[in-house]
Amino acid sequence: MMTGVVSAEQAVLEANHRFYQVLSELDTEAMEQIWLHEPWVRCVHPGWQMLSGWDNVLESWRQIFSHTVSHQVEPSEVTVRLFGEIAWVVCLERITGRPESGDLISFAQATNLFAHTPSGWRMVLHHASMVPVRMPPETSSTVH
Amino acid sequence: MMTGVVSAEQAVLEANHRFYQVLSELDTEAMEQIWLHEPWVRCVHPGWQMLSGWDNVLESWRQIFSHTVSHQVEPSEVTVRLFGEIAWVVCLERITGRPESGDLISFAQATNLFAHTPSGWRMVLHHASMVPVRMPPETSSTVH
Repeated sequence: MMTGVVSAEQAVLEANHRFYQVLSELDTEAMEQIWLHEPWVRCVHPGWQMLSGWDNVLESWRQIFSHTVSHQVEPSEVTVRLFGEIAWVVCLERITGRPESGDLISFAQATNLFAHTPSGWRMVLHHASMVPVRMPPETSSTVH
Repeated sequence: MMTGVVSAEQAVLEANHRFYQVLSELDTEAMEQIWLHEPWVRCVHPGWQMLSGWDNVLESWRQIFSHTVSHQVEPSEVTVRLFGEIAWVVCLERITGRPESGDLISFAQATNLFAHTPSGWRMVLHHASMVPVRMPPETSSTVH
């Protein structure tokens, strides 16, 4: 029984990790495998209104991926809570806008829900919102 | 069986409605009755980092309520989805900063989770994020 619980949590963590991998790779086809294709799924991108239904969610990923040259989204502070067939994940997203130069870093707080299906855990909610960033002290010298 | 499902959905809708009532009334004691007092509850106020655990969540409501003279938060576009002992609610919050004059209106998108307990449905997650507002066309005439 404990093994089953641990395995389910591990499977959810892997599904969550895979979501961020696919998001960073701007891969629409792989994103289709992450989500449950149902009218009741929901998605809130940072600063966006809520999108309802898989068709609208898919269209939003197409738009975002077509307007993004490259970025990297890494989850941290990940916690998982299981409620039978539904899993609730919260994590902090570190978004690097230009990974090659390391600038344009922002953070978003995410709530993700996954539903258990015969083919594994599928995302049914992604709600991400920007959070303030505490900037490190200025290191470059300035002349006054 | 269907009656049970309908009743559970109705009970969740009422718990969600009650949350917004208490939020509008700035009532910390009533807010304590809304939430489950567990270390695994989570709360994201608009633009805030995620708060973990009931103690931190309670402290945030105390801060918000002590710094707010009056406001009104009304949910709309509410949908409920039940997964056994957990209920997932999404809604659009209409926040009126000065209800007496009707100005300072903003909108937030909310994801709320409630857990079923022997004493009813208790909030375990509140994640709210600001969404853009489409302003109505300017009605006052201007001279060019």
